[in-house]
Amino acid sequence: MFQKSQKKAEATLENMRRVFSIPQSDSATLMKIERQISHNLLGFMRQHTIAGEMEPAQIEQDFMNVSVPEDPMFVNDQAQFLMEKVVSQSVHTASPSFIGHMTSSMPHFMLPLAKIMIALNQNVVKIETSKAFTPLESQVVGMLHNFIYHRDPAFYERWTHHRAHAFGIFCSGGTIANLTGLWVARNLLLAPKGDYHGVREDGLAAGLAEYGFKKLVILVSARGHYSLKKSADILGLGRSNLIAIPTDDQNKIDLTALREKIAELKQLKIGILALVGIAGTTETGNVDPLNEMADIAALHKIHFHVDGAWGAPTLFSQRYRHILRGIERADSVVIDAHKQLYVPVGAGICVFKNETSLDAVETSAQYIVRRGSRDLGKHTLEGSRAGMAMLVHSALRIFGRKGYEILIDRGIELAAEFSGMILDSQDFELTTAPELNILTYRFVPVNLRKKWDTLPQDAKFAVNSLLSELTVNIQKTQRDNGQSFVSRTTFEIPSQGRQSLTVFRVVLANPLTTRQVLDDVLAEQRVIAESEMRKMNFSQEVDKFFLQT
Amino acid sequence: MFQKSQKKAEATLENMRRVFSIPQSDSATLMKIERQISHNLLGFMRQHTIAGEMEPAQIEQDFMNVSVPEDPMFVNDQAQFLMEKVVSQSVHTASPSFIGHMTSSMPHFMLPLAKIMIALNQNVVKIETSKAFTPLESQVVGMLHNFIYHRDPAFYERWTHHRAHAFGIFCSGGTIANLTGLWVARNLLLAPKGDYHGVREDGLAAGLAEYGFKKLVILVSARGHYSLKKSADILGLGRSNLIAIPTDDQNKIDLTALREKIAELKQLKIGILALVGIAGTTETGNVDPLNEMADIAALHKIHFHVDGAWGAPTLFSQRYRHILRGIERADSVVIDAHKQLYVPVGAGICVFKNETSLDAVETSAQYIVRRGSRDLGKHTLEGSRAGMAMLVHSALRIFGRKGYEILIDRGIELAAEFSGMILDSQDFELTTAPELNILTYRFVPVNLRKKWDTLPQDAKFAVNSLLSELTVNIQKTQRDNGQSFVSRTTFEIPSQGRQSLTVFRVVLANPLTTRQVLDDVLAEQRVIAESEMRKMNFSQEVDKFFLQT
Repeated sequence: MFQKSQKKAEATLENMRRVFSIPQSDSATLMKIERQISHNLLGFMRQHTIAGEMEPAQIEQDFMNVSVPEDPMFVNDQAQFLMEKVVSQSVHTASPSFIGHMTSSMPHFMLPLAKIMIALNQNVVKIETSKAFTPLESQVVGMLHNFIYHRDPAFYERWTHHRAHAFGIFCSGGTIANLTGLWVARNLLLAPKGDYHGVREDGLAAGLAEYGFKKLVILVSARGHYSLKKSADILGLGRSNLIAIPTDDQNKIDLTALREKIAELKQLKIGILALVGIAGTTETGNVDPLNEMADIAALHKIHFHVDGAWGAPTLFSQRYRHILRGIERADSVVIDAHKQLYVPVGAGICVFKNETSLDAVETSAQYIVRRGSRDLGKHTLEGSRAGMAMLVHSALRIFGRKGYEILIDRGIELAAEFSGMILDSQDFELTTAPELNILTYRFVPVNLRKKWDTLPQDAKFAVNSLLSELTVNIQKTQRDNGQSFVSRTTFEIPSQGRQSLTVFRVVLANPLTTRQVLDDVLAEQRVIAESEMRKMNFSQEVDKFFLQT
Repeated sequence: MFQKSQKKAEATLENMRRVFSIPQSDSATLMKIERQISHNLLGFMRQHTIAGEMEPAQIEQDFMNVSVPEDPMFVNDQAQFLMEKVVSQSVHTASPSFIGHMTSSMPHFMLPLAKIMIALNQNVVKIETSKAFTPLESQVVGMLHNFIYHRDPAFYERWTHHRAHAFGIFCSGGTIANLTGLWVARNLLLAPKGDYHGVREDGLAAGLAEYGFKKLVILVSARGHYSLKKSADILGLGRSNLIAIPTDDQNKIDLTALREKIAELKQLKIGILALVGIAGTTETGNVDPLNEMADIAALHKIHFHVDGAWGAPTLFSQRYRHILRGIERADSVVIDAHKQLYVPVGAGICVFKNETSLDAVETSAQYIVRRGSRDLGKHTLEGSRAGMAMLVHSALRIFGRKGYEILIDRGIELAAEFSGMILDSQDFELTTAPELNILTYRFVPVNLRKKWDTLPQDAKFAVNSLLSELTVNIQKTQRDNGQSFVSRTTFEIPSQGRQSLTVFRVVLANPLTTRQVLDDVLAEQRVIAESEMRKMNFSQEVDKFFLQT
């Protein structure tokens, strides 16, 4: 009896081993799907996604069971499930008409590369699990540091693979990258002195007391990314101490307001952890006056951090790189590789001008990230990490500067073209003009536009609210139709007397997007607008305001 | 002339579009490598990796250039480079004789699955870029919550896909998961009251003042993971306020010392942010007395966080789950899916007993993670994230509980077998016995072991230091030989009078590892030990201590 159950256990283990070592006959369906995707991803998605037909609440019904099944399932059955319930309900982010978010198309060579990366399953936290991936990642960080700061060759020869210091970190995305930049800034500001071992060792309360600060704040324009709020929270500053400086009519930080705020804070003995410049705001794509901000930061000895998650790759373009002038003066800069470097989600980088800045957050342990080792984990917030740097390395080399330049220039010029189309139309209104490849606009019916100037100010306010509601309804319906996708956002629109409005937001970074696609997007929105206005009784509601006047 | 350059620009753009939409003939080499890997990863790695032959400093020579090349490169050329310089120098983490770290083998079905995930390139920060992946991830979090807490079905029906609350988060790995657990604990401890808006809004200094705490500390045994140090730093506590409680002879937290420390802290008006229990310490694999710790945490109303990054999947085993008794009483629990759930790096989860805990760190923005939306980004530290949950979903269903049970039981039993082999040997010494599937040991030459008891105490101390040096040398040589890999760590070994020693560390989680592999590892270490001892003049050095006596 014992022998029999022993034999059975051995047979089961043997089965399990096969699952780990060779492709199984029971995974043929899975491998077929994979082949189809490799062959023609866009066609596959067109054919198989039906997203839009089902409401989220309906889709959820297929994901209700929270029990791990007792018995194993055939790989083919899971593959079938994924096809029917997951792939079919996925968002076709690579579609040329998916122009609403920053998750874009991917070059085709990423697919085999990504699979090789995952097969190798290196863990770059330490060199013992990533022998070549460690110097490869250091090189990628070096390439991006050089891209921003272009220090001399001797600098890179000395520091790129240094055992004790690092001038940048690779991480899962812009949020962790921004957090790392601000973490370093906090620890540098409240550095050790005398018996006090620094905020890193002794904590924030001790640091504030030592330096005589009542509290710390971070300064950024009102267009700052929401990840900065999380950073202010987690670093112990509190979200209310992320101070939003007003923006000018181009959605750039107002330098006068910034200078006044700094003077006020100094008088109140409030420490400034960092001044954050934005190179491509998420909502409007504008770039802060980085060079002037660098002057201000230098004058007041404030850590100058640039969130270039979206816009930093604009430096590839000879025609447009001037927009980012001054970025090379920042103390730290964030770049998201899964945005305009066109690698899969998620790969972010934070580079530091100074090769010793990251010492302020260094960690070591005994079995790992040992002092004096090359282990990348010594300077990263994250621990175990995949070898995503291999994908960035490949993209940077395969595209080259000129390849990226084509993509960047094309996006900026297509955005300019689209804004022209909107300006030429009678029923769309450009709410923010594109500086890079992002713009916002809204639908305003022709007859309303014609009569707009006859509306008194408070009626304009009310009608604007109705228009915001209409925008939301159009955006949702278009999204749910599944043919194309633009996003929406809400903020104070300079051209509308700073009223907070909901507008369409378009991000043009997919090289497959053409003028024809943009024409179709507008045409679809017009059709949807008609039916949404009927549902809302829009004309009658608006007419009330005209009757009142 | 203009027309000509215009035509050229269009042709270039057309080329670029092809790169984004269809497989290119110039990527044949890349696709061939991918096919070989899919067919037989283990064989491919055996054949192509030569890691071990080259020193890190030599490998670095291939990764020195920090300039983004001006011109594009053929995909095939990059593929050739990756084969020759990256794959060849990678660590064969899936090898049955790679038993030193927690980066293990992967079931074969992960390769096509991972490629599909990357091809779909969903971004789960918001439902607009992850229509089906959002409920899928919520389901996975629900499965793991249920796995730990097994609340009633009504609980999961109500909360799994809730629009306002979440009982867990998915992230890139254990470090972010631990940080999230402690971030939540901090914000719950220093919650809003009266005019004070909580540490989240007003910051740590205001929170401490409001609650009358001098500072905050985190309590964990001396075997706590180094990510907790980073958490204490980033959350503003300071690393010195991560208090290491001594461990007993089984490397488990000493409950008496813990109780005393809590009493002392209360008298000093120091707040306890969290008590951290370890379910599988990284170095020795031991599990803290979770149930007793839960009693203590309940008594003192302390947030009880369990770091189960390694050990939580032990709950799959009917035979061994009792070791984790009490884990279901924790306020938050961390599980790493890229460890014993066998998905690729990096996938971590933190689940919370209470469905409202994560409200303490909620974020919203206008264009994304809107209030009332199902957007997962509302409760995560990270922003953009890949659809790794699809891999966990598939693994949980394809293995089922019974599949994981086989893997868990096999690992624990193989570790017991290996410890028996070490105990039976004359020249290896078991330094910590395995409770789960991790153990430590060292090499001690036969004649030294025989005479050990005749050594006076201080001579033992000195000889132990020599043995630590020998361990380091053996470990490095074995690693560089590239045939097999064990890791090393340094800590106070209970069986050696608490002297801090360097020892071999073995993690047995690869189902392909057999007794024969373990025999070979020991045999190789014996051979290496002989030559390392000669290089160190080991016998002569040791003899000095015997002559002295």
